Amino acid sequence: MTTLYNRIANQSLDRLAALSDGVFAFAMTLLVLDLRLPVAESIHSEHALLHTLAALAPQILMYLMSFLTLGIFWNVPQTQLHYLARGDRNFSWIHIAFLFAVTLTPFSTRLLAEFLAYRTALLLYWLNILLLGVMLYASWRYASRAGLIQEEVPAEIRQAICRRVVIAQSLYALGALLCVISTRWSLAFIFAVQLNYAVAPRFLQPRSA
Amino acid sequence: MTTLYNRIANQSLDRLAALSDGVFAFAMTLLVLDLRLPVAESIHSEHALLHTLAALAPQILMYLMSFLTLGIFWNVPQTQLHYLARGDRNFSWIHIAFLFAVTLTPFSTRLLAEFLAYRTALLLYWLNILLLGVMLYASWRYASRAGLIQEEVPAEIRQAICRRVVIAQSLYALGALLCVISTRWSLAFIFAVQLNYAVAPRFLQPRSA
Amino acid sequence: MTTLYNRIANQSLDRLAALSDGVFAFAMTLLVLDLRLPVAESIHSEHALLHTLAALAPQILMYLMSFLTLGIFWNVPQTQLHYLARGDRNFSWIHIAFLFAVTLTPFSTRLLAEFLAYRTALLLYWLNILLLGVMLYASWRYASRAGLIQEEVPAEIRQAICRRVVIAQSLYALGALLCVISTRWSLAFIFAVQLNYAVAPRFLQPRSA
Amino acid sequence: MTTLYNRIANQSLDRLAALSDGVFAFAMTLLVLDLRLPVAESIHSEHALLHTLAALAPQILMYLMSFLTLGIFWNVPQTQLHYLARGDRNFSWIHIAFLFAVTLTPFSTRLLAEFLAYRTALLLYWLNILLLGVMLYASWRYASRAGLIQEEVPAEIRQAICRRVVIAQSLYALGALLCVISTRWSLAFIFAVQLNYAVAPRFLQPRSA
Repeated sequence: MTTLYNRIANQSLDRLAALSDGVFAFAMTLLVLDLRLPVAESIHSEHALLHTLAALAPQILMYLMSFLTLGIFWNVPQTQLHYLARGDRNFSWIHIAFLFAVTLTPFSTRLLAEFLAYRTALLLYWLNILLLGVMLYASWRYASRAGLIQEEVPAEIRQAICRRVVIAQSLYALGALLCVISTRWSLAFIFAVQLNYAVAPRFLQPRSA
Repeated sequence: MTTLYNRIANQSLDRLAALSDGVFAFAMTLLVLDLRLPVAESIHSEHALLHTLAALAPQILMYLMSFLTLGIFWNVPQTQLHYLARGDRNFSWIHIAFLFAVTLTPFSTRLLAEFLAYRTALLLYWLNILLLGVMLYASWRYASRAGLIQEEVPAEIRQAICRRVVIAQSLYALGALLCVISTRWSLAFIFAVQLNYAVAPRFLQPRSA
Repeated sequence: MTTLYNRIANQSLDRLAALSDGVFAFAMTLLVLDLRLPVAESIHSEHALLHTLAALAPQILMYLMSFLTLGIFWNVPQTQLHYLARGDRNFSWIHIAFLFAVTLTPFSTRLLAEFLAYRTALLLYWLNILLLGVMLYASWRYASRAGLIQEEVPAEIRQAICRRVVIAQSLYALGALLCVISTRWSLAFIFAVQLNYAVAPRFLQPRSA
Repeated sequence: MTTLYNRIANQSLDRLAALSDGVFAFAMTLLVLDLRLPVAESIHSEHALLHTLAALAPQILMYLMSFLTLGIFWNVPQTQLHYLARGDRNFSWIHIAFLFAVTLTPFSTRLLAEFLAYRTALLLYWLNILLLGVMLYASWRYASRAGLIQEEVPAEIRQAICRRVVIAQSLYALGALLCVISTRWSLAFIFAVQLNYAVAPRFLQPRSA
């Protein structure tokens, strides 16, 4: 019986990973889908087309930022899943709640791209990122308590994963706070945080490369 | 030859699981895609934006509920597939019919979100859930009769899976019946049933965590 | 070197299968996405909603038929891939051309659902099915000639797969011809052929169930 | 510890491949989704429908071309991933940047299909292809320097992969330059290059078939 259950527990992590990859792949592709094409009838010269596309630049930057967000939040649970020995139903449900937050990303991104100067839109975007962080933290804490993590994983890695989520979320919260000055400051700060995680993600990583 | 066929039968379950994960991932992401963004031209203040978004609350709750539904119905066939030793073409087709019901979910959800007070919309939503349950029940019964289930799976688990589908569907049917009073009662009841299955899904589960 | 190449060839079939499952899962989910929701403002009673939804019935039947088509054409290459020992780039490209025909299905389905009485729409739908069949036939013939099929696969199975595609396509062509009488006759005939393949797909199958 | 890290590194390549297959599958399916259906009310005869659909021909050709592009750019990183012994976070991020370029493809394709005669649209389309090439080149160079490639992979294959990207991109750049004469010349040339890579992709391939 134990073998049977273990096998199921392992397969269940694979299936969860597959569902997760599907949701992320779709959410990432949808982001760019929302870029509105200029209407053909209103464009009569190269210059007009270029002008209309240039006006899309802030939106494209916004989508790039959300793509970065999804890239970052795709990487973290992947690391978590790798350190797990097995899953269980509760863990699956925490992960599914995390995926719900992922599917909200295209909506909160579109909202912010449309209402860049509005604090309401920025705070909802931040709430989305916060929800992603909270679910990741909850899933790792649950895995830790329920004994789902592989025994070989040393205590420092376990703590580093928690610490990482907390630090990142503190930075995002700080960024969100900057909207007291201006939503553009908030966005610039959050974007800088994300670039840092994407381009310099060496921390937590074995010195293998 | 036997080895060849077995290998194919097993691979076939993997492919079915992959198709299934893909369909669920898109259906889950599509749910939130239907949230309508406020029109930029009609919004002139933070307050107006907040007001418009607050009006989306019932729809967001509706989508959360459908996400829960999909989460629940993603978990059940996963458990079924894990207990199978192999698949065959008939089993595949019952599962594909189940996936058809899954792809209908974004439609029936949008319909209910748009027509929350209409019994027609609620009953169609329930018919969708019923169809999901019927196909799951049929696939497990077929697997049982055709000898597709692993021999190690004890009789009590086999029966528990059937019993679970029947109990859940009875509760959903009861919820649908409540629309005689009001569709809001129906929705509240169905939502409570789903939360119960998501948050307290310990039944049927090995006491491993 | 041989081991390296073999491993790559096998992995390449897995990746092709994964791409294929993704395209099918998306195409299947998109079909139902096109169902148009009644406009809330124009509906003022349960009766009006029911009436509007009943008018969707032919479209829903049409989508069910296309879902069946995709289900059938998902099963066939799956069987093909299982019998292969390895893939190569040419085989990949024939399969990618097959996937192009798959992605056309939501378009030709929408077209036919919108223009049910038009022969042009029906013939384009049939051309879509024909293209699917031609690519499947081509991929299996290529695999056969290039020596990609597992040696254990007996000659009768190799031929049965070709024969199956030819018979099915002859029936579809016959169905398309019936549009000389009426497109509805064509649709009914094609639908019957598809139901036959979905519900009674025992032929070609090992007598294992 | 080493075993643990290795296992994670390998799994990480599988997950990256899964995310990648998902993004490609959606992007490929989305391309055809953009084909605009004729409006039912404006069509009153078979002839009118045929006429309207014939007018879609350049768009369909455009989509076929983008499907080819995605097919080609799906094949190349697949080959790269197969030759890798393991991945790391930097490699993942270069690949995620590559996937960003993939998700831009449906947008740049729609843009070009809508504005076939405009150099701005053509150059943006080419910039998209260039970005795909640059990211592929960067990922392979990085993998090479960071020692991620399997030791058995001979030096000539390592160089051939770089050379291939450079040659293909030179041809695409030449094609883009032809827009000095006319965007149609550009498109015809790029299309020919792509057909060449799809239909005659024997170079780089072991002589196994």
